[in-house]
Amino acid sequence: MRGVVMYAPGDIRVEDRDDPKILEPTDAVIKVSAACICGSDLWPYRGIGSSDGQSPMGHEYVGVVEEVGPEVTTVKAGDFVVGSFFASDNTCEICQAGYQSRCVDARPMGAIGTQAQYARIPLTDGTLVATPDRPTADLVPSLLAASDVLGTGWFGAVAADVGPGKTVAVVGDGAVGLCAVLAAKELGAERIIAMSRHADRQALAREFGATDIVAERGDEGVAAIKDLTKGLGAHGVVEAVGTQESMMQAIRSTRPGGYVGYVGVAHGVKLPGGELFFSATHLHGGPAPVRRFLPDLIDLIYRREIDPGRVFDRELPLDDAAAGYQAMDERRAIKVLLTP
Amino acid sequence: MRGVVMYAPGDIRVEDRDDPKILEPTDAVIKVSAACICGSDLWPYRGIGSSDGQSPMGHEYVGVVEEVGPEVTTVKAGDFVVGSFFASDNTCEICQAGYQSRCVDARPMGAIGTQAQYARIPLTDGTLVATPDRPTADLVPSLLAASDVLGTGWFGAVAADVGPGKTVAVVGDGAVGLCAVLAAKELGAERIIAMSRHADRQALAREFGATDIVAERGDEGVAAIKDLTKGLGAHGVVEAVGTQESMMQAIRSTRPGGYVGYVGVAHGVKLPGGELFFSATHLHGGPAPVRRFLPDLIDLIYRREIDPGRVFDRELPLDDAAAGYQAMDERRAIKVLLTP
Repeated sequence: MRGVVMYAPGDIRVEDRDDPKILEPTDAVIKVSAACICGSDLWPYRGIGSSDGQSPMGHEYVGVVEEVGPEVTTVKAGDFVVGSFFASDNTCEICQAGYQSRCVDARPMGAIGTQAQYARIPLTDGTLVATPDRPTADLVPSLLAASDVLGTGWFGAVAADVGPGKTVAVVGDGAVGLCAVLAAKELGAERIIAMSRHADRQALAREFGATDIVAERGDEGVAAIKDLTKGLGAHGVVEAVGTQESMMQAIRSTRPGGYVGYVGVAHGVKLPGGELFFSATHLHGGPAPVRRFLPDLIDLIYRREIDPGRVFDRELPLDDAAAGYQAMDERRAIKVLLTP
Repeated sequence: MRGVVMYAPGDIRVEDRDDPKILEPTDAVIKVSAACICGSDLWPYRGIGSSDGQSPMGHEYVGVVEEVGPEVTTVKAGDFVVGSFFASDNTCEICQAGYQSRCVDARPMGAIGTQAQYARIPLTDGTLVATPDRPTADLVPSLLAASDVLGTGWFGAVAADVGPGKTVAVVGDGAVGLCAVLAAKELGAERIIAMSRHADRQALAREFGATDIVAERGDEGVAAIKDLTKGLGAHGVVEAVGTQESMMQAIRSTRPGGYVGYVGVAHGVKLPGGELFFSATHLHGGPAPVRRFLPDLIDLIYRREIDPGRVFDRELPLDDAAAGYQAMDERRAIKVLLTP
């Protein structure tokens, strides 16, 4: 099969890889209908963080089940399925508490690589959720978004305690940040402030439910949020970038007793304990337990109540993946969908 | 009146200070019945953090109202009262959300100095809570504990999401940590692990409700907590020290999706963002909003359901305050009560 492999930072190739096979009785093999490039794929692409030689790429996916192992009970060949970027058993204490991305037996799908024609899915029953039927083509991008960016933005909004009557700010206007805006709207936030400097992303944020846009960053961005909230700060802030500046912007934009939901993978961030202490904020985040939200998200998408697939502003054949990485790296695209 | 003043690190003096007066119409003046020395007083005593020349000391207090300003409506001369270490209006949005220590008009009582015979209390209606009657002498230490260490330990336990069926660990065996153990017991925790290396504090922790004692620290302490929790970590951990080691011990002892309630004033702590992210813990803490809990705590003390005053293992006349600081600094006393 064809699959994306990163040889080195900036060096993305699409090449023949071995067809995946059932290795464990709880495995499934799916034919990938659509995959995509994640903001987190850009970290190794830019040479930040660990990179161990050639790596298969991709951890977002929707597809059709080809084959299942003998212990799989919840999906069967022919089902259209959505999964998360961590495979999980969904039965351990951690999963049952809603933290499937930290399942005691969690398997990172990035190590398998779903930017490919086929993918092996471990722990199938705990990982995949079948859609009610074979979705029409227009639903596929949104279902694909559910497998990571929507689920991650949703988790960020939940971690930021979004709800009716609340003012929420979102730091970061990538696909995750935009999906956090959408989640905040669905979760009933009264006021949603998107922090964005890009006109196209501001426009999509407004369509997703943002009531205010703040273009300033850093201290100026914090001051703008305070101005909009009687000097108190937002009730909740979603952090969807993962840098020192964005984390501090999020914490400082939150009122005492408020909530910071952080879902940008924090790279090289050091949080000052004293400032955090006196901020009296709640801080919660991490790799989103997307599996927790998948059934509800699929339902919302099927009812056409949300259209998170709009974050995909470019679609490329899998073989052109390198161009997709480049477009996202240069911020010419918000998010690129790959069709195998 | 007599009052404690710190001249420099290690230099505690008791001297004549001006009698406090009503300065604002919402003020009260109280005759202090009992005050005490806080673990946080030891930071400047040891020369850590800011110290601007001579400082009045003390922020914990119970006493009898001497006089009230014309706008005070909830207490009157002769009432026995308990207050928090931050005066608060208890009416602003932040207070109403339960974060009185971060009231928009918060006033630190430490700047006034309650290790004294009398004290001016700002924002009386929002700060002081009157007891049902003049308490018997045996209740006074517990009421005094409510004004900070009990309220702080309680907040830590609440922030650590303590409740029925939960396993909670407490890092730190000072008065706040011990009160967090007591709070965890009252809040219904199933298992309470006190992390302590001192036999006398271990004994009090057990009396307060600890079911397990872990003497190890750092990585060994974390491993011991994991051993006691099927390898997962505690559901919640209260951090009541405020050092880099204790914060990391708390975070690493918490299971994914679990809660860290941190109430030790974090000095020079830098939290690694990446590790915090992948821990998937909830982190909440800060200066405890003691006022939120005071009515309930007073009620529990009056019903003799809890006896937090047991954290005071030494009582000294106010004039001997210097000896009290020395005893706590050298860990010869858990907490020193001062009688003016």
